[in-house]
Amino acid sequence: MKRFWSGRVRDMVPYTPGEQPRDRRFIKLNTNENPYPPSPAVAPAVAAAVDGLRLYPDPECLALRQAIAQSVGVLPEQVFCGNGSDEILSFAFQAFFDKGEAITFPDITYSFYQVYVKYLDLTARTVALNEDFSLPLEAFCRDCGGGVVIANPNAPTGQAVGAEDLRRVVEANRDHVVLIDEAYVDFGGESMARWVNAYPNLLVVQTTSKSRALAGLRVGWALGHADLMAALRCVRDSINSYTVDRLAQAAAVAALGDRAYFETTCRQVADTREKTWKRLRDMGFDVAPSKANFLFVRHGTIPGPALFDGLRARGILVRRWDLPRIQDHLRISIGTEAEMDALCQALGELTAGQ
Amino acid sequence: MKRFWSGRVRDMVPYTPGEQPRDRRFIKLNTNENPYPPSPAVAPAVAAAVDGLRLYPDPECLALRQAIAQSVGVLPEQVFCGNGSDEILSFAFQAFFDKGEAITFPDITYSFYQVYVKYLDLTARTVALNEDFSLPLEAFCRDCGGGVVIANPNAPTGQAVGAEDLRRVVEANRDHVVLIDEAYVDFGGESMARWVNAYPNLLVVQTTSKSRALAGLRVGWALGHADLMAALRCVRDSINSYTVDRLAQAAAVAALGDRAYFETTCRQVADTREKTWKRLRDMGFDVAPSKANFLFVRHGTIPGPALFDGLRARGILVRRWDLPRIQDHLRISIGTEAEMDALCQALGELTAGQ
Repeated sequence: MKRFWSGRVRDMVPYTPGEQPRDRRFIKLNTNENPYPPSPAVAPAVAAAVDGLRLYPDPECLALRQAIAQSVGVLPEQVFCGNGSDEILSFAFQAFFDKGEAITFPDITYSFYQVYVKYLDLTARTVALNEDFSLPLEAFCRDCGGGVVIANPNAPTGQAVGAEDLRRVVEANRDHVVLIDEAYVDFGGESMARWVNAYPNLLVVQTTSKSRALAGLRVGWALGHADLMAALRCVRDSINSYTVDRLAQAAAVAALGDRAYFETTCRQVADTREKTWKRLRDMGFDVAPSKANFLFVRHGTIPGPALFDGLRARGILVRRWDLPRIQDHLRISIGTEAEMDALCQALGELTAGQ
Repeated sequence: MKRFWSGRVRDMVPYTPGEQPRDRRFIKLNTNENPYPPSPAVAPAVAAAVDGLRLYPDPECLALRQAIAQSVGVLPEQVFCGNGSDEILSFAFQAFFDKGEAITFPDITYSFYQVYVKYLDLTARTVALNEDFSLPLEAFCRDCGGGVVIANPNAPTGQAVGAEDLRRVVEANRDHVVLIDEAYVDFGGESMARWVNAYPNLLVVQTTSKSRALAGLRVGWALGHADLMAALRCVRDSINSYTVDRLAQAAAVAALGDRAYFETTCRQVADTREKTWKRLRDMGFDVAPSKANFLFVRHGTIPGPALFDGLRARGILVRRWDLPRIQDHLRISIGTEAEMDALCQALGELTAGQ
């Protein structure tokens, strides 16, 4: 009935996250979760942190920022931590983008960007991806007149651009923040993290949700010039001073410390992705090369809703959007080898005789 | 240098949380943390939840909402969970308050309310507390013309009003949301939770940070009509869909389930508060009756900064504000009996001969 709703929310169409079935009966390939558990170093670190729970967490997440800084090769003052990379993105849109200037991002990308724009009463200028869903780089390699947001690899397409190409974007937009959303970078993309020293307008956003198998933990971070980090702190301290709890800080530090496990599981996901890519292509699917932990897939004749429903009926959840250009596509997260076998078998049944 | 800062943050003066010393050498009576550890049920619940961390948390926090609903006597659809009660408060200010209408709250209260007002470009109408820092109830028992926010017990004064008095406020302001911030209610206040069925404009905010000894966990909630909860969900899903992580949900459920421990430790804190109140009064301090887990204290002749610095030099951290009317007051959290002995001894030294 919305009787007491503010104008801010009355007409808002919020983000819809992928389904989280509570009973776990599905093969869940719909929210890009890692099929492997987090590093074995996480459990003891969490157990040790329970003891301190009566006390507030360190709002500045110093130990975590040091672990991130060491992991990606920046300084701790070039790191800002938040409650998942969605919170970081929301803070960044608040901290760096103003009403008068349109924010440029691709027409097909992470759909939360449009939600932030609408909610914060900003303006978006979307640039159409090429026919094959690759990024039309030249459209970003000029002064876009406002902030620029690029997910790399892009979601839901999985396609990546190289760091040298993105440097051109950052250099062409020196008067505005260029936000590179690297939620999926560890599965084969090239990170821009090493360039935050060189460019005061570059903001890189990363997360533990995918490559560190910690979606349930909600830890993300931004990398950038200390002046950008100060703006993010100002947003945070205008909303909620302590957004990363003690258990999350401890678990993320432990996961970041276990580099071997991280590299092994990322490589395993990438291997499974490549195998699945070949199998789906051989089955006649239109499937672009992906550098992320998912594939973006279309069948030549069977509509997206039929594939989605058919998979669901076979106990497999994937993600689909009712949006122009991609209504026949499915985004399929990379699971274990066995899960991908089940996926391919189900898709084989659904496409038999087509 | 603020080169890339948006207008939204450029002139913002954010909230300053109490100091969180990283080395723990202090007797820490500055952020109203519980001196006792969380329920022993928390550790095993957290350990069991680590296993699921590769998966996103339930964004709707169903199990936690059920535990809260059972604990306070409402329905799960009358509960909304967030990343600490600060996040809940921030969401509520966004969801229910509009630019055109001033929000009424006391001049001396939780200082984050003013931060939300400024950050969200709202308007505040502050009502001066009485000389003795009690709430001038009649000023709120009429149509205030916009939202109303009352912390009960109030912070930093510790003073409480009864539920029957607050019902009059809610009834006098039926066209606007009346937000009752009950962060400290479990130490002796009267909760308004049972009235959310009767009043569609009543929003009650609570937290696990103080009475459940889980400040490090960041779990708070709102109680209210389902239509109010829907507005809070809309704000959340415009910012960050998953704000309460899996470990936090599991730990909070466990803490809520251990009612005996909760009641015992709350009673212990209240007993220590009463004893300390008497001791400080006998030492010549001006100290109002408190229903919270802190005391608001002033000495007749020694200025606030001198007391604050003297305690700090003796290894005791308390909280003080450089604000009109309260610059000579200290807010002292209730610690263990031993910590309060140390406090009283230090204050005795500081006031000797005065």
